[in-house]
Amino acid sequence: MATLVLLRHGESEWNAKGLFTGWVDAGLSAKGEEEARRGGQLLLDAGVRPDVVHTSVLTRAIQTANLALGAADLLWLPVTRSWRLNERHYGALQGKDKAQTRAEFGDEQFMLWRRSYDTPPPPIADDDEFSQLGDARYASLPNELLPRTECLKDVVERMLPYWYDQIVPDLSAGRTVLVVAHGNSLRALVKHLDGIGDDEIAALNIPTGIPLRYELDDDFRPVAKGGLYLDPEAAAAAIEAVANQGK
Amino acid sequence: MATLVLLRHGESEWNAKGLFTGWVDAGLSAKGEEEARRGGQLLLDAGVRPDVVHTSVLTRAIQTANLALGAADLLWLPVTRSWRLNERHYGALQGKDKAQTRAEFGDEQFMLWRRSYDTPPPPIADDDEFSQLGDARYASLPNELLPRTECLKDVVERMLPYWYDQIVPDLSAGRTVLVVAHGNSLRALVKHLDGIGDDEIAALNIPTGIPLRYELDDDFRPVAKGGLYLDPEAAAAAIEAVANQGK
Repeated sequence: MATLVLLRHGESEWNAKGLFTGWVDAGLSAKGEEEARRGGQLLLDAGVRPDVVHTSVLTRAIQTANLALGAADLLWLPVTRSWRLNERHYGALQGKDKAQTRAEFGDEQFMLWRRSYDTPPPPIADDDEFSQLGDARYASLPNELLPRTECLKDVVERMLPYWYDQIVPDLSAGRTVLVVAHGNSLRALVKHLDGIGDDEIAALNIPTGIPLRYELDDDFRPVAKGGLYLDPEAAAAAIEAVANQGK
Repeated sequence: MATLVLLRHGESEWNAKGLFTGWVDAGLSAKGEEEARRGGQLLLDAGVRPDVVHTSVLTRAIQTANLALGAADLLWLPVTRSWRLNERHYGALQGKDKAQTRAEFGDEQFMLWRRSYDTPPPPIADDDEFSQLGDARYASLPNELLPRTECLKDVVERMLPYWYDQIVPDLSAGRTVLVVAHGNSLRALVKHLDGIGDDEIAALNIPTGIPLRYELDDDFRPVAKGGLYLDPEAAAAAIEAVANQGK
């Protein structure tokens, strides 16, 4: 039996501004910093002590990990980072205003880009100011591996090798693993863990800043589907608030 | 040719209080946080771009690394931590007031404990409140490896395996390496690099928060002894201030 804890980063400065972010490296807002510290406090209060940490290479996830670990007095934990845990690449939508995009392209197209499992937004141009081409943190990625856009299916495919090759070996060694990442990379992981269908996954939302704990069996599958949020009431309220946004 | 950058953590809350710290896990003071950010800004201004980071497992070094990397927009760098980069273990002096200790034991004994190469302070008792026995971060250290006191010679001996096994391979692969650590673990490393004698090392002080850059030859020895501080004037002033403390 192994313990896996997922933590979605707190509000970023671009979330607060209502812009599509994806791989653009926005930092946390003050509210996001507070959410991250609270996430660490929840770990501490629940007596959940990770042995290792995995993060994306995006600043907002790393800041969240650092602030949460600081609050839990666990800054010294070993940490590994990978682009495979990054947020979904939002393609040509990166840097665009969400409300403006919705008004321009209509509700149907907007929701398709946001929630379709296998329809990515148009690719970003390599000379777009919000392209990641030339970003030093991706210098070791061959050109064909650097996404120009992604749907959730693409995220599942690029995330799973990291799950199998880096996270599962930690779990297998008996370590409690904390993964600090993003709405869509964590949805991709939860889809895999809980065996959620391609259509059903659209309805799944993971709240920010609330650690989600899974106990896993010997096959690295959840003992109880859906796991358990360390603050179940706050998580339920946050999930309901997102569900009501569309109404 | 490889580039190595050393950064000593900024002022800790215990430095500010005048207490012997050693392996006690004091955090940075507000001044120390500011020093750390400035260290990152100096890296950025000098165009020194580390590829990997090594820190101790003590919070004040990790906070310094995180703040410096945040200031340089490099939070995403891979980082490795080890107890082998920790500050010197101060034995039974840990948690004691420096001025009081000096008054109690006299100048000669005080200076011997602070600056002798091979005379450690008395060992700390395992049931001392400032002992590290039972600290989760050292859970993988067999009992005989956990120090109860250290002189600088002990630090050189436990630090060097990390230099050879973890840092040199990074340098050898062409990576620019940033090491964020402590007064004495960095003095130990500089003693090795510059070939400083056991007696001469007593006079060497490394200022806090100012990156010290070494270019290394194919044998991982400095091209120019002593390296180069990224802010040479501030470094010289800080070194002189320490030298004058004893007068």
